[in-house]
Amino acid sequence: MLGEAAGPLGIELLVLDPTPDCPASPVVRDQIVGEFDDEDAVRELADRSDYLTFEIELADPDLLERVETAADVPVHPSPDTLRTIQDKLVQKDALTEAGIPVPEYRAVDDAGELRAALDEFGTPAMVKAREGGYDGRGNAPIESPEDAEDVLDSVAGPAMVEKFVHFERELSVIGVKGKNEVATFTTGENVHRDEILRETIVPARASEEVLERARSVARDVLDLMDGRGVYGIELFETSEPLRGSDTSSEAGSRDSAGEILVNEIAPRPHNSGHWTIEGAVTSQFEQHVRAVTGRPLGSTEQRDPTVMTNILGDVAETQPAALRGLDDVLSTSRAALHWYGKRDVRPLRKMGHITLTDPDVDPDESAGDLDELLARTRELRDAVTFTED
Amino acid sequence: MLGEAAGPLGIELLVLDPTPDCPASPVVRDQIVGEFDDEDAVRELADRSDYLTFEIELADPDLLERVETAADVPVHPSPDTLRTIQDKLVQKDALTEAGIPVPEYRAVDDAGELRAALDEFGTPAMVKAREGGYDGRGNAPIESPEDAEDVLDSVAGPAMVEKFVHFERELSVIGVKGKNEVATFTTGENVHRDEILRETIVPARASEEVLERARSVARDVLDLMDGRGVYGIELFETSEPLRGSDTSSEAGSRDSAGEILVNEIAPRPHNSGHWTIEGAVTSQFEQHVRAVTGRPLGSTEQRDPTVMTNILGDVAETQPAALRGLDDVLSTSRAALHWYGKRDVRPLRKMGHITLTDPDVDPDESAGDLDELLARTRELRDAVTFTED
Repeated sequence: MLGEAAGPLGIELLVLDPTPDCPASPVVRDQIVGEFDDEDAVRELADRSDYLTFEIELADPDLLERVETAADVPVHPSPDTLRTIQDKLVQKDALTEAGIPVPEYRAVDDAGELRAALDEFGTPAMVKAREGGYDGRGNAPIESPEDAEDVLDSVAGPAMVEKFVHFERELSVIGVKGKNEVATFTTGENVHRDEILRETIVPARASEEVLERARSVARDVLDLMDGRGVYGIELFETSEPLRGSDTSSEAGSRDSAGEILVNEIAPRPHNSGHWTIEGAVTSQFEQHVRAVTGRPLGSTEQRDPTVMTNILGDVAETQPAALRGLDDVLSTSRAALHWYGKRDVRPLRKMGHITLTDPDVDPDESAGDLDELLARTRELRDAVTFTED
Repeated sequence: MLGEAAGPLGIELLVLDPTPDCPASPVVRDQIVGEFDDEDAVRELADRSDYLTFEIELADPDLLERVETAADVPVHPSPDTLRTIQDKLVQKDALTEAGIPVPEYRAVDDAGELRAALDEFGTPAMVKAREGGYDGRGNAPIESPEDAEDVLDSVAGPAMVEKFVHFERELSVIGVKGKNEVATFTTGENVHRDEILRETIVPARASEEVLERARSVARDVLDLMDGRGVYGIELFETSEPLRGSDTSSEAGSRDSAGEILVNEIAPRPHNSGHWTIEGAVTSQFEQHVRAVTGRPLGSTEQRDPTVMTNILGDVAETQPAALRGLDDVLSTSRAALHWYGKRDVRPLRKMGHITLTDPDVDPDESAGDLDELLARTRELRDAVTFTED
């Protein structure tokens, strides 16, 4: 999607990816096949490029720093920001130090420490690998102190534990840091299942106050980040009302105004920002290209109410991807298909996404129409399958 | 732009282009370097592809027909449609035979025939090479019968002459023929200078009646075409009112309702349809990919009032393209840049385009706002330059 966004700006992309003929290759200038920590490959990438960026947290910040100096090619966001974000404990410490609200957390080096933390936080709680987690991998809920050893084994490596947040909604704000400017997109609402993002609804079905507070917290996060580019900022809206706010709300209305806590930050275009391709004036991908290359940012204004849904592998085991059921998506007005061209489908693998926009939905009036837009999007998605009838 | 549109659909493009490292190459799978009439190159293209299409009338219909049969790969639009359109005389004959209104025209094989035609049509008139014209090349206005020899020499080869049309506006309709469906986009208004398209304004600043009549004529043209794909249909709105229509109109209003004549047809995505990328729900490029591959068509609904302007080479002679003055475009909300990546700028060469959309313009109320949108677009374009300050 970065390649598709860079083309119109006259900017060519060269990608490093370990998979030969990777999903980006049909729409970029060239691919260097190599692991993300292959110093020769990253060096070749830098030698052939004017700017370096990364789209995955598995990039190696030390290597990027060395190459930045050796090849004299700017890296955005900064390798140091990547380093901070890669370690979820360091990330949380940095946020806390800046006064940005996060769920209560603690480093746990062994089962004893984990049980001690659970004494304080209660159960359930969330145990997380400090590094390398992705789409829920490395995250494990813990229900009872007795499971401490097993859960720590399952996440493997240095870990932390977070107090379980009773949240009203999961939100996200896509932000972008340009050369001398910062911008945020409309606050979206994320629906996860099995810790994998299923849908993003924009705007979130929350009060104006919550949407704005989320944006404000995201701004604080962006101030903390070093280096240009797009950041995906995942947030919780807690079930408790904002301290000191008027909490009068009617049942079924969207007035519940919870506190905003930062869950996680991604220093890259984020799945919860895919809606911007059709739903916003400038996509997160174009913004990332503009930001990294030091060009002016585009408008983050939302064009229309939008729902994005991922297309996940609905198969029991890995097999060649044989896509079926696309005709409904393609023949529905304002439904857009993004197919990533991955050769194999795996259980719950992100194979593509569908975005549905509707200018006639009025999110200010009630959440009803957004609910219906979400239902229509799910219907289109559910018709897409990789299995035989 | 086809490559950028094909990517999200998971469709890969392979291009044949005589220029090594052609503008499409950064955003497509691969380029075969070869002339459009290089049989081996076209054959290789066919052997590596599931569908063949063309984006330029210089493609060779006989060769395409041979390859279609030999490689058993469908070609859309049909080579026969390309053949009909390539020869402007044959094109006009086909339209006339189908009862579609065109300017008066006549084949002229020598100066005597041209002078005889001018006796009837009057001057000025337009002499056109029957084949190979592009961006005004091959078209020559004639002011006096005395110039007949010179003008025929200048167009070179078989020629025709057309009666000069006193037109109110030049219009165009982008149409698309799918597997079992036909669709048209909103009628646009084209501004040409020196026979090169400068701007397209959508909707055209004409009455609802004229917009609809243009669409209806375009539908008739599409019925005549064989093969799937996008067609650009250029039209004249004549200065005379529609026969039998109510001609009461106030000065300065947009009610003048002229007759619609077909000027020219392009069997491919057309410059006057570039506005659809930002201005319509589905772009002409995505529609072309959908149509050629037999997928359902997307919605042609217009999203917002839109002006597209070409960025032409403002240089006196060919030189390496050094683009300046883009910051205004990039920092203007709802202005989109499309830069084609051509290495050299030549006088009046199409180097890219700018599209400006504005949801607050109301084309139904008056043309005033569209005038202003056009003025804003021109201002952005005029800041872009290839020359030193």
